[in-house]
Amino acid sequence: MLPSSARPGLSAYLKDKLGDDAVAALVVSVLLIPQSLAYALLAGLPAQVGLYASLLPLLAYALLGSSPYLNVGPVAVLALMIMQSLALAPAGVSPSEAALVLAAEVGLLLAAAALLRLDALAALLSVPVLQGFEAGATLAIAASQLPALLGSPAQGGTLGALWRSADATGWRLDAPSAALGLGAIAALLLSRRALGPLLQRWMGAARAALLVRLAPLAVLLTALLIVWALRPPSLALIGALPPLQLSLTLPRLDAGVWQALLPGAAMIALMAYVSSLTVAESLARRHGQRVQPRRELMGLAGANLAAALSGGMPVAASFSRSVLVSDAGSRSRFTGVLVALLMGLALLTLAPVLAWLPRAVLAATIVVAVLSGLSARPFVLAWRYDRAEALLMATVALLVLLEGISLALGLGVLGSIALLLQRTARPHVALIGRVPGTEHYRNVDRHRVELDPQVLGLRIDESLLFTNVRSLADVVQAHLDQHPQARRVLLQMSPVNGIDVSGLEALHELQDALARQERRLDLSEVKGPVLDRLRAGGFERWFRGRIYLSHHQGMHDAG
Amino acid sequence: MLPSSARPGLSAYLKDKLGDDAVAALVVSVLLIPQSLAYALLAGLPAQVGLYASLLPLLAYALLGSSPYLNVGPVAVLALMIMQSLALAPAGVSPSEAALVLAAEVGLLLAAAALLRLDALAALLSVPVLQGFEAGATLAIAASQLPALLGSPAQGGTLGALWRSADATGWRLDAPSAALGLGAIAALLLSRRALGPLLQRWMGAARAALLVRLAPLAVLLTALLIVWALRPPSLALIGALPPLQLSLTLPRLDAGVWQALLPGAAMIALMAYVSSLTVAESLARRHGQRVQPRRELMGLAGANLAAALSGGMPVAASFSRSVLVSDAGSRSRFTGVLVALLMGLALLTLAPVLAWLPRAVLAATIVVAVLSGLSARPFVLAWRYDRAEALLMATVALLVLLEGISLALGLGVLGSIALLLQRTARPHVALIGRVPGTEHYRNVDRHRVELDPQVLGLRIDESLLFTNVRSLADVVQAHLDQHPQARRVLLQMSPVNGIDVSGLEALHELQDALARQERRLDLSEVKGPVLDRLRAGGFERWFRGRIYLSHHQGMHDAG
Repeated sequence: MLPSSARPGLSAYLKDKLGDDAVAALVVSVLLIPQSLAYALLAGLPAQVGLYASLLPLLAYALLGSSPYLNVGPVAVLALMIMQSLALAPAGVSPSEAALVLAAEVGLLLAAAALLRLDALAALLSVPVLQGFEAGATLAIAASQLPALLGSPAQGGTLGALWRSADATGWRLDAPSAALGLGAIAALLLSRRALGPLLQRWMGAARAALLVRLAPLAVLLTALLIVWALRPPSLALIGALPPLQLSLTLPRLDAGVWQALLPGAAMIALMAYVSSLTVAESLARRHGQRVQPRRELMGLAGANLAAALSGGMPVAASFSRSVLVSDAGSRSRFTGVLVALLMGLALLTLAPVLAWLPRAVLAATIVVAVLSGLSARPFVLAWRYDRAEALLMATVALLVLLEGISLALGLGVLGSIALLLQRTARPHVALIGRVPGTEHYRNVDRHRVELDPQVLGLRIDESLLFTNVRSLADVVQAHLDQHPQARRVLLQMSPVNGIDVSGLEALHELQDALARQERRLDLSEVKGPVLDRLRAGGFERWFRGRIYLSHHQGMHDAG
Repeated sequence: MLPSSARPGLSAYLKDKLGDDAVAALVVSVLLIPQSLAYALLAGLPAQVGLYASLLPLLAYALLGSSPYLNVGPVAVLALMIMQSLALAPAGVSPSEAALVLAAEVGLLLAAAALLRLDALAALLSVPVLQGFEAGATLAIAASQLPALLGSPAQGGTLGALWRSADATGWRLDAPSAALGLGAIAALLLSRRALGPLLQRWMGAARAALLVRLAPLAVLLTALLIVWALRPPSLALIGALPPLQLSLTLPRLDAGVWQALLPGAAMIALMAYVSSLTVAESLARRHGQRVQPRRELMGLAGANLAAALSGGMPVAASFSRSVLVSDAGSRSRFTGVLVALLMGLALLTLAPVLAWLPRAVLAATIVVAVLSGLSARPFVLAWRYDRAEALLMATVALLVLLEGISLALGLGVLGSIALLLQRTARPHVALIGRVPGTEHYRNVDRHRVELDPQVLGLRIDESLLFTNVRSLADVVQAHLDQHPQARRVLLQMSPVNGIDVSGLEALHELQDALARQERRLDLSEVKGPVLDRLRAGGFERWFRGRIYLSHHQGMHDAG
């Protein structure tokens, strides 16, 4: 990691790590050039926006982020979200302008989250929501590429929008585009399925894998040659890219535009953070390292603000490219700086060549790339383990495909929370008795223990939080109904790690309810930090019971 | 409880409970008549809507509900929400028609919640959100009554809307209205503060309390007499009520209207359920009884559907009236039937008299009633105990007052969840060691125990759910960094009551991460139901470690 660990000596870095980082940068750039063009087109933006989003954002992440493996830049899923969000921009604002506003909002939201230490918000997206989203988005992306693949002028990010657009344009197709597009898909699939095993007969597995990875590049070059030789008049090409212009400009400051794009920006920021964090964690685990979520938030915030200031679009870490960076042996975040340099070089030198790239072939690479990750396995596994969560997953996937991402993620988050509330609404409270001859107390249902008819000993097995305390008094009353002789209720609080305001209120209400039945509420083994908080909050002004250091002591107190 | 426990004999009910129920019904009806008129006017509806909402809904609750104390009907807080929701109805739909659609939606949403067993959703509204809402709504209601109190034609449910409306109508006031209104407030405050202590000198405390409770009635009657004698021309009166017409009619079936009112209906349904459940729980606790949340959902659903079919508006349990029912000695839900009969009788006989009620005096009773419940104490207590939750409470209160209820409740719920995620994001995992000479294992930080350098024993102190499992692998890795010699990680699972799909995925990832470090993941003391679920879900197909019955056994397994 250059900014911190390499300070002892730049020469040490140059000797030790530069070589490895340069190889990783070269390998990933070969993949990044076509992907950045393709994802910009997928988002409904000019192709060069993708290249700009692969320059300064990488420098910003290298400066502020923490992972030496993440490759930040245009991502397919984000491109789909950007397309859907741009549809909500007010009339008269060009998509490129709106994309800058969107990137600025994403960057500011992530920076605010870093400042407010909201890194825990990543938990909002549970595994069923994430997996359902991924499956739905994969299918939606593949569907959105069909028009480009077949040379149709239709556009849309959901199945309904695509159908209407295709209907409005009379289902027009272009034969040369379709031939090139479908041919490219066939070539890409063949290279994945057949080329690898074939090559392994002649060379080692490592070399074969490297050559297979270069297959998409070979397909693109072949397509370039065909187009250059035949020049079919109707074929849609990338077209001339404007010359490299790295001038920093502020995104348009218009309250109406910013407001219209804010909900989409919030969803994009959440998804960019969670997906990048997931990639970072997964790669860190492979190397036995740990991730600092706040540093990731800061790195992503910087990358998106850089994109907003330099003609890009919202960015995040790409899983496939980051794995490539990790596998190719990257040693530090300086890899990102090298990738940015290579991308700048590509913009300067390759622009005349890239202009000849047929859009149908780019679409083919997207379709093959995203569909290779599609699997029904997560659904099957979830269905076996938990029907309700599997239904949530399928609902999110369908909503992404049919209704759009914001609604799907919004309802997915609400669904996760509803399931959580349904499962945790009653705090787990165990009736405990004394293990004969000892001072230990254990669950009556699982051990042979002695009960005291005068004192009801209960163990609160969870923190007392608003999700579960509503029924605390009811759970205790249910135990009392079984043991009506009890004059005191002694709650063993050792498993309680926290009590929020709702929990405090529930304890107060429980004490009052017991007082009306002429029973006293006592506590035992309250954890130190919990007790400190209670005392600071004026707990002892209303609490009329006693607090015992040990449960045994509390059970035998005559007072 | 009539429908169940009284079946052994109606005559037994008549002998035992009818007398008590009749007294309770009479006492609460005296309060309900003016309140039902006033809350209908507060909601921006004709006065008689409140009376209709106090007839059939009570019968429906008596049939389907569970509490013998709840008085269901028009409620101040709901009236404010209804007013704000009706503002969103499409043009051309009268407020009365829209109120029926709203009541139907609330009833259907509550019925759906009962069917889907979503009674746990009550936990969505944490104590800070509820208390903040209550304070904000109280002030908003009081403010919304100012125009009626002073004879101004302005209207509005938030401070901003009121200000604009008053500005638009030229800050016009009506002197006789203002005189009557402010006079009534003075009389009501005096009767609360001074009358009780005064009366207690001449009679017992119980009788004095009863007379004080009748003071609002005396104020209303005095106002009636004044108006009837002086007949000031400009004074706003309730006006002639249409004759009692209890015909069942379907609410208008227009998709546009239903869609426009749905978000408001969802908020009203949630608030109606949570506030009614809170009242029912609080009164049940006083009598050492328990509440069935699903029965309450059904009772409220029935009451709101009845309101929709009989010219009413959304209803819920009123805290003040329910306490009155309980204090007056109600014994069964038949009290509600008697109240409905009395209300019908009042509609038939009192209509000509009620027509003379000045709106300013009704407004005065509302202002005094709601402001008497206002207190800064919850804010002070929350501030002492937890700054973040206190800020949430204040934010909700301010939003209710300034921006409206839907936004306030929505952001309040999101805020509660954000705080929860921030606090529970890292699962509590304790390093445990052997208590010398025993087979017990305890937290290293709190006991003198022996550790095994080869096997890292960790106790998972919480259920593994999407809110906390994101950082499970990180937490375990942090312990491993301290004990790098460990070859196995043994998780004691006895405190784990549940594992959701996200938790399962986290265990899988943890196993893979450890395998890459050539460490094995084992489990001990997995609870029976948890293990059954894991096995049913195909856990053993991918889990490569062992599961031990006791942690001690797991620590000493050589395999």
